Amino acid sequence: MAKRKIGLPKRKKKVSRVHGKVGTAPGTVSYLGTKEKGDSVVYVTTYDAENVSSKEYNRVEDILKYRKETKTSWVNVVGITDEHFIEDLGAGFSLNNLLLEDAVNTDQRPKIDEYDGYIFGVFKMLYLNENDEIVPEHTAMVLMENMVLVFQEVKEDVFGGVRNRIEAKSGRIRTRGADYLFFALLDAIIDNYFLVLEQVNHRIEITEDEVYADPKPIVAQHIQQLKKEVLKIRRWIFPVKELVSRLIDSESPLIKHDTKLFLRDALDHSLEINESLQIYREMSMSLMEMYMSNMSNKMNEVMKVLTIMASIFIPLTFIAGIYGMNFEHMPELHYQYGYYIVSGRNDHPFCGDDDLL
Amino acid sequence: MAKRKIGLPKRKKKVSRVHGKVGTAPGTVSYLGTKEKGDSVVYVTTYDAENVSSKEYNRVEDILKYRKETKTSWVNVVGITDEHFIEDLGAGFSLNNLLLEDAVNTDQRPKIDEYDGYIFGVFKMLYLNENDEIVPEHTAMVLMENMVLVFQEVKEDVFGGVRNRIEAKSGRIRTRGADYLFFALLDAIIDNYFLVLEQVNHRIEITEDEVYADPKPIVAQHIQQLKKEVLKIRRWIFPVKELVSRLIDSESPLIKHDTKLFLRDALDHSLEINESLQIYREMSMSLMEMYMSNMSNKMNEVMKVLTIMASIFIPLTFIAGIYGMNFEHMPELHYQYGYYIVSGRNDHPFCGDDDLL
Amino acid sequence: MAKRKIGLPKRKKKVSRVHGKVGTAPGTVSYLGTKEKGDSVVYVTTYDAENVSSKEYNRVEDILKYRKETKTSWVNVVGITDEHFIEDLGAGFSLNNLLLEDAVNTDQRPKIDEYDGYIFGVFKMLYLNENDEIVPEHTAMVLMENMVLVFQEVKEDVFGGVRNRIEAKSGRIRTRGADYLFFALLDAIIDNYFLVLEQVNHRIEITEDEVYADPKPIVAQHIQQLKKEVLKIRRWIFPVKELVSRLIDSESPLIKHDTKLFLRDALDHSLEINESLQIYREMSMSLMEMYMSNMSNKMNEVMKVLTIMASIFIPLTFIAGIYGMNFEHMPELHYQYGYYIVSGRNDHPFCGDDDLL
Amino acid sequence: MAKRKIGLPKRKKKVSRVHGKVGTAPGTVSYLGTKEKGDSVVYVTTYDAENVSSKEYNRVEDILKYRKETKTSWVNVVGITDEHFIEDLGAGFSLNNLLLEDAVNTDQRPKIDEYDGYIFGVFKMLYLNENDEIVPEHTAMVLMENMVLVFQEVKEDVFGGVRNRIEAKSGRIRTRGADYLFFALLDAIIDNYFLVLEQVNHRIEITEDEVYADPKPIVAQHIQQLKKEVLKIRRWIFPVKELVSRLIDSESPLIKHDTKLFLRDALDHSLEINESLQIYREMSMSLMEMYMSNMSNKMNEVMKVLTIMASIFIPLTFIAGIYGMNFEHMPELHYQYGYYIVSGRNDHPFCGDDDLL
Amino acid sequence: MAKRKIGLPKRKKKVSRVHGKVGTAPGTVSYLGTKEKGDSVVYVTTYDAENVSSKEYNRVEDILKYRKETKTSWVNVVGITDEHFIEDLGAGFSLNNLLLEDAVNTDQRPKIDEYDGYIFGVFKMLYLNENDEIVPEHTAMVLMENMVLVFQEVKEDVFGGVRNRIEAKSGRIRTRGADYLFFALLDAIIDNYFLVLEQVNHRIEITEDEVYADPKPIVAQHIQQLKKEVLKIRRWIFPVKELVSRLIDSESPLIKHDTKLFLRDALDHSLEINESLQIYREMSMSLMEMYMSNMSNKMNEVMKVLTIMASIFIPLTFIAGIYGMNFEHMPELHYQYGYYIVSGRNDHPFCGDDDLL
Repeated sequence: MAKRKIGLPKRKKKVSRVHGKVGTAPGTVSYLGTKEKGDSVVYVTTYDAENVSSKEYNRVEDILKYRKETKTSWVNVVGITDEHFIEDLGAGFSLNNLLLEDAVNTDQRPKIDEYDGYIFGVFKMLYLNENDEIVPEHTAMVLMENMVLVFQEVKEDVFGGVRNRIEAKSGRIRTRGADYLFFALLDAIIDNYFLVLEQVNHRIEITEDEVYADPKPIVAQHIQQLKKEVLKIRRWIFPVKELVSRLIDSESPLIKHDTKLFLRDALDHSLEINESLQIYREMSMSLMEMYMSNMSNKMNEVMKVLTIMASIFIPLTFIAGIYGMNFEHMPELHYQYGYYIVSGRNDHPFCGDDDLL
Repeated sequence: MAKRKIGLPKRKKKVSRVHGKVGTAPGTVSYLGTKEKGDSVVYVTTYDAENVSSKEYNRVEDILKYRKETKTSWVNVVGITDEHFIEDLGAGFSLNNLLLEDAVNTDQRPKIDEYDGYIFGVFKMLYLNENDEIVPEHTAMVLMENMVLVFQEVKEDVFGGVRNRIEAKSGRIRTRGADYLFFALLDAIIDNYFLVLEQVNHRIEITEDEVYADPKPIVAQHIQQLKKEVLKIRRWIFPVKELVSRLIDSESPLIKHDTKLFLRDALDHSLEINESLQIYREMSMSLMEMYMSNMSNKMNEVMKVLTIMASIFIPLTFIAGIYGMNFEHMPELHYQYGYYIVSGRNDHPFCGDDDLL
Repeated sequence: MAKRKIGLPKRKKKVSRVHGKVGTAPGTVSYLGTKEKGDSVVYVTTYDAENVSSKEYNRVEDILKYRKETKTSWVNVVGITDEHFIEDLGAGFSLNNLLLEDAVNTDQRPKIDEYDGYIFGVFKMLYLNENDEIVPEHTAMVLMENMVLVFQEVKEDVFGGVRNRIEAKSGRIRTRGADYLFFALLDAIIDNYFLVLEQVNHRIEITEDEVYADPKPIVAQHIQQLKKEVLKIRRWIFPVKELVSRLIDSESPLIKHDTKLFLRDALDHSLEINESLQIYREMSMSLMEMYMSNMSNKMNEVMKVLTIMASIFIPLTFIAGIYGMNFEHMPELHYQYGYYIVSGRNDHPFCGDDDLL
Repeated sequence: MAKRKIGLPKRKKKVSRVHGKVGTAPGTVSYLGTKEKGDSVVYVTTYDAENVSSKEYNRVEDILKYRKETKTSWVNVVGITDEHFIEDLGAGFSLNNLLLEDAVNTDQRPKIDEYDGYIFGVFKMLYLNENDEIVPEHTAMVLMENMVLVFQEVKEDVFGGVRNRIEAKSGRIRTRGADYLFFALLDAIIDNYFLVLEQVNHRIEITEDEVYADPKPIVAQHIQQLKKEVLKIRRWIFPVKELVSRLIDSESPLIKHDTKLFLRDALDHSLEINESLQIYREMSMSLMEMYMSNMSNKMNEVMKVLTIMASIFIPLTFIAGIYGMNFEHMPELHYQYGYYIVSGRNDHPFCGDDDLL
Repeated sequence: MAKRKIGLPKRKKKVSRVHGKVGTAPGTVSYLGTKEKGDSVVYVTTYDAENVSSKEYNRVEDILKYRKETKTSWVNVVGITDEHFIEDLGAGFSLNNLLLEDAVNTDQRPKIDEYDGYIFGVFKMLYLNENDEIVPEHTAMVLMENMVLVFQEVKEDVFGGVRNRIEAKSGRIRTRGADYLFFALLDAIIDNYFLVLEQVNHRIEITEDEVYADPKPIVAQHIQQLKKEVLKIRRWIFPVKELVSRLIDSESPLIKHDTKLFLRDALDHSLEINESLQIYREMSMSLMEMYMSNMSNKMNEVMKVLTIMASIFIPLTFIAGIYGMNFEHMPELHYQYGYYIVSGRNDHPFCGDDDLL
């Protein structure tokens, strides 16, 4: 159906997935997303002020050796469909199973959990695909001593800017530790929300133009679609402010005081995003009002035409009804082609050469 | 009447029950539900890491011997219509009468009460019956030293998953105590809310399709029904988040620190459920708006047809009124069958063989 | 006027009362209600585990002797129109004049005030009168050492259940002190709110049926009436939750720890009542929406009939206008009774025996 | 314009006043109200338990001598347009310039400020003028040691009750200090809000009757006016609750513990007023709903008439169009006066004696 | 398009700017506004109780010498498009890069950040341009020891009043330090909000008059525009209250106790502004209601005309249809000019001299 075309890609039918999950023990690591099963690829970048090196691995053992690394490591796991891989990796890094469950549970809402020795966060990376649809991607990040471990469903370039800054020798990121990397990745996700909100704003303006131009029934569906979309995005984005604020208040030794200054900046952005969301929500709601008022206007126009037509011709018809065709002096009646003219017909007359006058 | 068919089973007429309750002393144990009187059956499962045993009892004395049990016991009382049985059982376990009153009061809202030596919780177990109607079932749970005492109205398989995990030797549940069992049962109830919410979502989508397809009066009633249903489910589910959060903050020695990590997970799920509820509530409210806008659209369509018909034919009728039948050249009038054709009749002509021209 | 019939009894015109009150010193004891002046009657019940005795008095001196009573006394003052009586009684028990002012001020909102040596509460007792109208009755209660002093406008049997439990030797109430009596009376008031809410629910359902059945203008007034009623009841009931919660947190030695367990139960009920109120409020608000949608539906139906009639007959009339009566073969015209049949008349024809064919 | 007649007196055009104020230094004492420039008159009442004396002054020096007065003094400055007078007076009592600015700034919202040695409050005195319009009057009060200094725009009798109680020897006010006087004046202002709210309620009822009786366009404007009025009154009254509550929590030695008991009473009244305001606000908002529903009803009625007329006469006209005037047996046609009867004319016939049959 | 003419100047297309910003490191100083690149001009005013001097500079070095100035300096940087200039200046004063980023980021929401040694604030200066449009101007202020550093996009005279007060020897501002200057500038910004709100109020009244006078479709767009405008202004103004309140609670030695008294005054103004905003928001929302009700009224009027026309003429036409032209006594038919009169034509008759009777 056409009605869902604007906005988010089609709602995934997740009935069976939920059914499959209900009743299992908590801490069961099972992938709930829609991606096809496949191997995980792990991209590891290690750097300090002097050096950067990037490698790609497929096996858990190769990654575990980075546990002892003193440089800062960014371990980026792409593909979370292989639950055994995730479980082995988690075991290798002594991560809690509840954490791993959330890392691969694509329905998990954004959260920050502090464990002994590591901080775990789930965020929704939002980006626009080639059709300018807003695509949510589940992202889990673990901040450990000298390491940030990231779980992604697919390899997206939202983190591209961070990678570039690491590779550029001059970047501040090179001289700061894993906590700054954690912040930088989070900041990249939040920055991307601005692009998504711009797209939402763009859609609101397009729909508003539709409302002004021609309030057809389909426009009401577009508005409804828009409202749902804002509701959904809100669900993914709204908690982030609270989470960043919790990171700032955290007393974990993993986050250095310097980095908190940057987190305060990220908090600022989250606040701004939440305010925008609120405004977009109110705007999408008042679109329906506009639509209704425009429709009433159209109805008014239609009714006015009807009333004018009726007010002119009904009395005339009445007058014609009384006197119309009985006047003795009606010149048109005697024209040969009178009937054809009045009835708007241009076919050849039955008896073209008759002249009865 | 058909109007209540969608959604919850018919509202129970509870006037007399409330009347019966008003004026009695607090702590009076009286069943307020709609189930027929019957005997309670008690299923007792005791387990530790090595062994599991399940038994079924009908008499209070048999159950009381589990008071001294050092393994973890799950005492599941099914059927709470027999108030004497409940009172005797409560007395045997030294439970407060106010607790027993709430345990059998099916109108009791979800709650957590901490007493000396035990923690008491009331929850609404929601499940879908064979007609996919959402059925609320009153469930009370008491967490004691080495024991969880559960009161249910009927034997439902919402707890089936927990039972399976206990019977499976490998399950983590076997090595953890009564507090983990309490959590596991609560988690099973919360997990089931996801299924119920999915059903609500499904109904919203069906009703939305009805609204788009044909906004008949009955659809407005469906929407109203849906809104009421969401309001009711909200009442049962919404407090759970607060209650789980209170369990986490509890300083009772009955809840071990390890289990709180799992409760935090349950809290997460409650949060997600409450967010979904909020979204469903807004969606059900905007359905009415959509309905009204579609109805206005339909009205507009009808009015346009009327206006077009009137705008074309009223002036024509006026013109016809003046000139119509008096033109001297109207070929149709002289056809033998003209009248029958124009009036759309196909009966045999009165005088079929006349030819007046 | 008929429009106020559903719901509460007619709003009392209280202009003059307010005018009379404005400008007086605070602490001035003046009755503001609508009851006619009359003597106060005081019912005193004293009891302990062994004995109960009930007496009736008219004079302040008789009551003051209970100040030294060591059994629990329930002093129930019925009729608060006699301000001198109230003032003398208050002076006898050393009660603050501000308290007495509130005790007889029927406009006073629910409140709890702790004084040295006594706790004072104002509540609205709501009950259904013989016409099922919801009647609010001002009730003030003072909890003192071994005594509860109650001020009522009229003798209502809301407290009947408590009286019965006192008279029944077995009741727990007999062995507990004045604080439990205070709780029991408060609990009786709260319990009665359930009956009132049931009545509200009943009215919402009746009005909903009216909306579905036939959305006449009077129904809109019923809805408006209902909304106002819920607003008013809310004002009386809503603060109670907060007040009970304050009693629980109170550090006054007048309330024993045991009784707080029962107050927690009352708090639970208040919470449930407030939730119901909230739901009824939303339901009464969505009734108006339903009404509007049904009215739009009716309008749609009417418009459709009009459009169908017009779409069929206006073109036909046009066609008839052109050809109608000029066809040479119109059998009906030649029937003798044609005119009478078509015009639906059955009077005797002017010239019954003519036959022109 | 008639549309602003209900409700508040015309909005004052204050553009120039605001423009004049913007850019000046804070603490600049400049009167912003609409009263004409005039001299201030100062009424001083001093009293203790034994004596009362009232005097009237025009010069600052006369008032400053009361600084050393040990009795309680009520210094009532009426007229605040003379900024020099106010500044001199303020300097004499060592009052902060920011305070004086607020004292004469009639746009100042209600506030309580504690300074060293005095407490300053701004309140809006609301009263009904002779046309029952609600008039706000700016009132500033300073509580000092043994003195209450009041600034009023005009001499209003809202404080008349307090004056009477001071003059009556028996009043409690005579034996209590300046803090009780401050409370008594504040209480008088709050008491008057009840009268104003009653007037608002009265207007809501009148407008409601208009809505029920005849929903003309002017009624929509009345409702809009009412909503604005409630919004404005709310702005003046709503903060008072918070301010009284702050006075109660104040640790200033100027407010004695005894007086706080009375302030608690005033807090109670403020709470009640805020609740009423809330209810009136909801009622004024639902009036618009009622209006819309009644208008829809009227439209329905009109449409039904139209549809009935059309449904009856359009088919008849069609039938008449086909057969009407061609029946050979139409007795009316042959009556001499038929035409005059059917067309409803009663003028004398052109040729009264013609008989063509 | 005409629809955006009322209200704010056209929304700037900022897509590319956001795209440019996303992915850069935090602390990157890049101007995001719409002003054209240009040199910054720095106006420096130094003053103490005795002397004032004002200078204008273009180079960073000239300004840095004021770091050691013991008089109070107001360093006003006008033009923030030259990022290198800003970075150099910031480096010279040892300002954090995150601060500089916000100083030139024109999308930054209002904020207060305390750093070691300085306090940083971002505010939106709102003023009316020559077309009475509301123009937001990004303003950043840094309070340092003896200095306030201000960054502005353009030189606006909102600060003109402050400049005048500095130049006037008598002003209090001369004897107080940099913190009072910081307050005075902030107060000037807040004071200007009153003018902007007045303009908003003015627009609401104009739109309200449009709604009352003639609810054309364009008026609905004006209302929508107004609602958006209030939403946007709210976003810029609303946080200020919170920020001022934070300044008051700040424990920074940079803000003296005396100045906090003045900040309390500014807080008061912010509160008043927020209340006004809230009221304007509700008023702009109820405008749409008014509009809808007026449109319904117009529709009602149109329908009534139609119904009256139809109710009068449709039955008459029917009657005319039956009897109309067949009466034998219709005098008009025999007039020579009857046809021309009834049809309202005044052309010369075809056969003016014919007389068929």
